[in-house]
Amino acid sequence: MGFEQNIRRVEPYVAGEQPEDKDIVKLNTNECPYPPSPALIRRAEQLSMQQLRLYPDMNAGKLVDALAAYYQVRPSQVFAGVGSDDVLSLSFMTFFHSDRPVLFPDVTYSFYDVWAQLHGIPYELCPLDENFCIRREDYLRPNGGIIFPNPNAPTGILESVDTIEEIVRKNQDSVVIIDEAYIDFGGESALPLVDRYENLLIVQTFSKSRALAGLRIGFAIGSEKLIGYLKDVKFSFNSYTLNLPSIELGAAAVADDAYFRETVNKIIRTRERTGAELAQLGFSLTDSRANFLFVSHESVPAAELFAALRQNRIYVRHWNRPRIDNHLRITVGTDEQMERLLAFLKNYLKNRKGV
Amino acid sequence: MGFEQNIRRVEPYVAGEQPEDKDIVKLNTNECPYPPSPALIRRAEQLSMQQLRLYPDMNAGKLVDALAAYYQVRPSQVFAGVGSDDVLSLSFMTFFHSDRPVLFPDVTYSFYDVWAQLHGIPYELCPLDENFCIRREDYLRPNGGIIFPNPNAPTGILESVDTIEEIVRKNQDSVVIIDEAYIDFGGESALPLVDRYENLLIVQTFSKSRALAGLRIGFAIGSEKLIGYLKDVKFSFNSYTLNLPSIELGAAAVADDAYFRETVNKIIRTRERTGAELAQLGFSLTDSRANFLFVSHESVPAAELFAALRQNRIYVRHWNRPRIDNHLRITVGTDEQMERLLAFLKNYLKNRKGV
Repeated sequence: MGFEQNIRRVEPYVAGEQPEDKDIVKLNTNECPYPPSPALIRRAEQLSMQQLRLYPDMNAGKLVDALAAYYQVRPSQVFAGVGSDDVLSLSFMTFFHSDRPVLFPDVTYSFYDVWAQLHGIPYELCPLDENFCIRREDYLRPNGGIIFPNPNAPTGILESVDTIEEIVRKNQDSVVIIDEAYIDFGGESALPLVDRYENLLIVQTFSKSRALAGLRIGFAIGSEKLIGYLKDVKFSFNSYTLNLPSIELGAAAVADDAYFRETVNKIIRTRERTGAELAQLGFSLTDSRANFLFVSHESVPAAELFAALRQNRIYVRHWNRPRIDNHLRITVGTDEQMERLLAFLKNYLKNRKGV
Repeated sequence: MGFEQNIRRVEPYVAGEQPEDKDIVKLNTNECPYPPSPALIRRAEQLSMQQLRLYPDMNAGKLVDALAAYYQVRPSQVFAGVGSDDVLSLSFMTFFHSDRPVLFPDVTYSFYDVWAQLHGIPYELCPLDENFCIRREDYLRPNGGIIFPNPNAPTGILESVDTIEEIVRKNQDSVVIIDEAYIDFGGESALPLVDRYENLLIVQTFSKSRALAGLRIGFAIGSEKLIGYLKDVKFSFNSYTLNLPSIELGAAAVADDAYFRETVNKIIRTRERTGAELAQLGFSLTDSRANFLFVSHESVPAAELFAALRQNRIYVRHWNRPRIDNHLRITVGTDEQMERLLAFLKNYLKNRKGV
């Protein structure tokens, strides 16, 4: 049989393309169209590379302290990891250690079922309603844990903090994880609830609103108890993961709140403007509170638009999955990028109707 | 019962201390006492932080290409990860997917049993002989995979490439992983075997010989088949882990071979000189081919020496584990650091005898 009998086979993940060509309008992976904070760039110039010979601080103390100060929690309530994917995968491993199924929406971030399978965790999908909203009663039954993004991906739909609080309050026997990767673009965070509910974990990322996808930083905030368990699991099998540049530059980025707010507000304005224009072109849109739009055209199939855009060097995201296969997810770029998108669509739809 | 019933409990790992105090002689975590390559420092000055807004290349192409060129293999034979702990943990997950036990030495790197337990992999310890050498016949029985470090940790003992080749050749039904974290300090690598044995994986790290513990880079080299499976597993659950600074600066470090050789040779010379002096003080030493010494004193218990050194601000490593609890592992630092260590020991042993 040979050595391949012992090898784990998986279905490879297909990520959004990362083209080298700078001329492509890249609206496919929800990156920030603006550069990181100038404070980070100044810090990078001073960063001593001599220190790289030493292991980094395994607690990522500087970064954790910066986040704790910013979000007004104790450092012992903060856990930092290599992107929110790392934090979420570790959280699945730590908090969903149960024989009962973990609950999450049918239309949601595509790694939840992957991590559940990876860690041998049973799970059940809870179908969103016809408007892609959570039906809160779905989450009020016995379970081994709950997770959903807020705003949801790829719909952009925001649930209220009231809904989240009810779900957290009525699930004292489970850990509830709210994946707030996109919360900074106009949503209300459930963070203030962590001091009242020990079973709530909030996960966020530096990859979107903080323009640092290339540094790989994600973090969780919760009760000291939850963060303690998460650290125990993480340190038990891989102590050093966040590198020195991530810790130092991440901390510098957090400190520059003015730049952060300015960037986020620009993206929100561009999102609203672009959404209004897309509606005029016959698109229906969800009320996205994220840095992307989730759209469906009244007469032209999403797959066709995806291919036409791609041919015109505009990359957006399309999934061949039930319920969302007639939608496109379009990252909010700069105003210039959005104008190129709108100009192309206007022209394409006009000519197509004329055929 | 509450939510804690669903939480995975683990025994927290105790890492070597990372004191902030610069006056401490830090010989406890096998870091390089010399700074990283000047070529890396120059590259860091030019690195554009603007790019950080984008996700990094998930294939770490530049780093993989640099390693492939350096080790004269194809890029498709190289996998890069967040330190060799990340690469090894992923390799356990990918290659030891068997009901038969994985085999490794009883005295070895302390994470092997942790990863086996983490991924639900059965394992059996193979006792080293009385000189801490591998008994190759232990590895010639049915198994689900084989792993050992070469040189071994924390003994520093090197096995010959002939021994490794025999184990690899006689285990065509398993993947054999050689963890070469310390190979650059005078050992002969088994790398040339990867072109003849599809079931062999070599894992190395940038944390020791390349003076980059703070960047977190490890890598594996093997057959295209093994590397392909490893990538599939990794990308299936966390696509982006190595950040932009790691990819760019890691590639720059690999390119500076002259500096690398010079650093490694300095450490080897200091190791040999220090070893000879320790022998004169009544220590017995293994024939270490790593950047550490593994020593035991003829009359003074290791635990006592460890505590006395620590009180004098010299940090080394000691484990309360069977077979090695009367040994110390001492990282090879600069000549100045070693002189401080030797001066203290000389004085301590003289006064103790006199008591």
